[in-house]
Amino acid sequence: MAFEFELIATDGRARAGILHTPHGDIPTPCFAPVGTQATVKAVPPRDLTELNASLVLANTYHLHLRPGEDLVQQMGGLHEFMQWNGPILTDSGGFQVFSLTQINKIDDEGVTFRSHIDGSQRRLTPESSMAIQQALGADIIMAFDQCPPPKDRETVEKAVARTHNWAARCREAHPYDDKQALFGIVQGGIFQDLRAQSAEFIQSLDLKGYAIGGLAVGESKAEQYETLDFTLPLMPNNRPRYLMGVGDPDDLCEAITRGIDIFDCVIPTRLARHGAAFTFDGRINMKNARFKDDPNPLILDEAFKSYSQNFSRAYLRHLMIAKELLGYYLLSLNNIAFLITHVQNMRQAIIEGRLAEYTQTFLQRYLGRSQ
Amino acid sequence: MAFEFELIATDGRARAGILHTPHGDIPTPCFAPVGTQATVKAVPPRDLTELNASLVLANTYHLHLRPGEDLVQQMGGLHEFMQWNGPILTDSGGFQVFSLTQINKIDDEGVTFRSHIDGSQRRLTPESSMAIQQALGADIIMAFDQCPPPKDRETVEKAVARTHNWAARCREAHPYDDKQALFGIVQGGIFQDLRAQSAEFIQSLDLKGYAIGGLAVGESKAEQYETLDFTLPLMPNNRPRYLMGVGDPDDLCEAITRGIDIFDCVIPTRLARHGAAFTFDGRINMKNARFKDDPNPLILDEAFKSYSQNFSRAYLRHLMIAKELLGYYLLSLNNIAFLITHVQNMRQAIIEGRLAEYTQTFLQRYLGRSQ
Repeated sequence: MAFEFELIATDGRARAGILHTPHGDIPTPCFAPVGTQATVKAVPPRDLTELNASLVLANTYHLHLRPGEDLVQQMGGLHEFMQWNGPILTDSGGFQVFSLTQINKIDDEGVTFRSHIDGSQRRLTPESSMAIQQALGADIIMAFDQCPPPKDRETVEKAVARTHNWAARCREAHPYDDKQALFGIVQGGIFQDLRAQSAEFIQSLDLKGYAIGGLAVGESKAEQYETLDFTLPLMPNNRPRYLMGVGDPDDLCEAITRGIDIFDCVIPTRLARHGAAFTFDGRINMKNARFKDDPNPLILDEAFKSYSQNFSRAYLRHLMIAKELLGYYLLSLNNIAFLITHVQNMRQAIIEGRLAEYTQTFLQRYLGRSQ
Repeated sequence: MAFEFELIATDGRARAGILHTPHGDIPTPCFAPVGTQATVKAVPPRDLTELNASLVLANTYHLHLRPGEDLVQQMGGLHEFMQWNGPILTDSGGFQVFSLTQINKIDDEGVTFRSHIDGSQRRLTPESSMAIQQALGADIIMAFDQCPPPKDRETVEKAVARTHNWAARCREAHPYDDKQALFGIVQGGIFQDLRAQSAEFIQSLDLKGYAIGGLAVGESKAEQYETLDFTLPLMPNNRPRYLMGVGDPDDLCEAITRGIDIFDCVIPTRLARHGAAFTFDGRINMKNARFKDDPNPLILDEAFKSYSQNFSRAYLRHLMIAKELLGYYLLSLNNIAFLITHVQNMRQAIIEGRLAEYTQTFLQRYLGRSQ
């Protein structure tokens, strides 16, 4: 049963399902908060449970550098280390290697780079990424890929070829077992033929799930949605589909409508640290003077549940102005709860066959008033 | 019944009691964490409840400057503003005016100073301190005093005279009611005759509680304990006695043994931000390499309860090295829980007539291994 994906309902191309994992079921669509360094920034794991988080992401690149996968393994693996007993997904390290480091050399074997922490020279290959992720012990692990700028055809072509070669090597290096599932990543930038070629190859590896990589890294929203339009029909129905790094509330509407099941993004916690909060009436800057004496909770809808709702906007503004840690915590709770609730609402709407109505109403209110 | 102080048991000079307040009973001895800007740094109020905090301190000086007492009052007072429904004590602003600001002028009427936030010129007087504290709405408020360096006799003499004059004016300005109790502050540095003179005068105002101010600001531990030795017998038995700004675990032993009932200190949260943690075996630096692969919880005693106990020292070290907000939160929980537990243990020992035994065992272990 582990990693079986059950489709519960569809509404157009949108899907509601359940992904079974050794650490519990993930109802999909699902938004996963990101615990970069084995902690979702400012949020204790028991609060994640309270917020109905059903999947947490952690970063292979960061954990490999610090504290190192050997230590995490010695401490009983990621679940035990970070005291999050629900499902965990680790990325491959590929994205960070290309975005955070000074790269010395990319070759067909792997990538040599310098650590952003201490400048030490390191190397990641498909095989070492698999070994690191196995040691970390997440439920779902990702194939090591190359994520290029999405609109430079020549670079994207090379990255697709390399990604395929690396994916096959990851598959080889990671014998499937019931404890850890390998997902493959479809690359191809904004190019329909490359996405098609990539979707076909990656599926041929017969993996437990498939991700769309290389989006939300420089293309326009229209290009992102169009890429989803022509890529998703090429992906199998009986496997979960994961859109990496996307978390804007409006993007979630568009991607779920097109058939995506899983999302992750740092946006809820990153925005919180900058004093920004999601509301159904759009994103707001909590430091804005108009909240100075606002006695209302952050989200005006009574159905919305989060501990952050106990506090007034006036108090939250005071915390952010005074740079109090409690402010980052409460805004992080709000923003994660908002995205999880939003995705749960969409799941319910799919089950009830009214997704278009939900997203239209949501987008009108969310975008209408924030623009 | 409000602000009645019940003595439950004594053990030598040490006392166990209950202070009744409009927001609940405070079992004494009691350690109060400090919420400087209407938040105990990094700790949500629901966690304070879980840690059995029975009193929280907030700072008049800080809240007067930001967000201002008018706003707090408009938002329903401090309890409602910070969502802490237990007892709150506010200090008078005097200590911060003297320690944090560039003072322009002290005169018998009050103090003119510059805000440490924006440099604006401000003035505090006994009357304005009372008005601010009334607006903030804490259960217990403190008389506006002058806290001098404790060993300069000439300065201390002047500060004592001024403190008495100001205390009488505070008493006059604050008509006692059942909602808010005014505590007086005994000054006098390390000088026995000045402490005696101050204790006598402040008691003559017939207040609901009495504090010892002007300690833990530059004297040695021996001088602090000696001052308590000769000051406490001069203070009434039927009122709570509050030692301001003291929170070192060994100082708590010494002061409770000598008859103190209430403490406050920023030390648990300040230490946490610097990566230091209280344990029964002494204070430790969580970043120390010896904890790198330590699978134990921070406190080895199984009876010790705190959510922070769910995490390994190895993980806590990782969080502190990686500067993760969760690390500050978990160490703050540990340190507050430690002081509250320690004081609760002493209360139980007083009730059972074995305080000397408890403190001897505690100090041997706490100081013995940390030196």
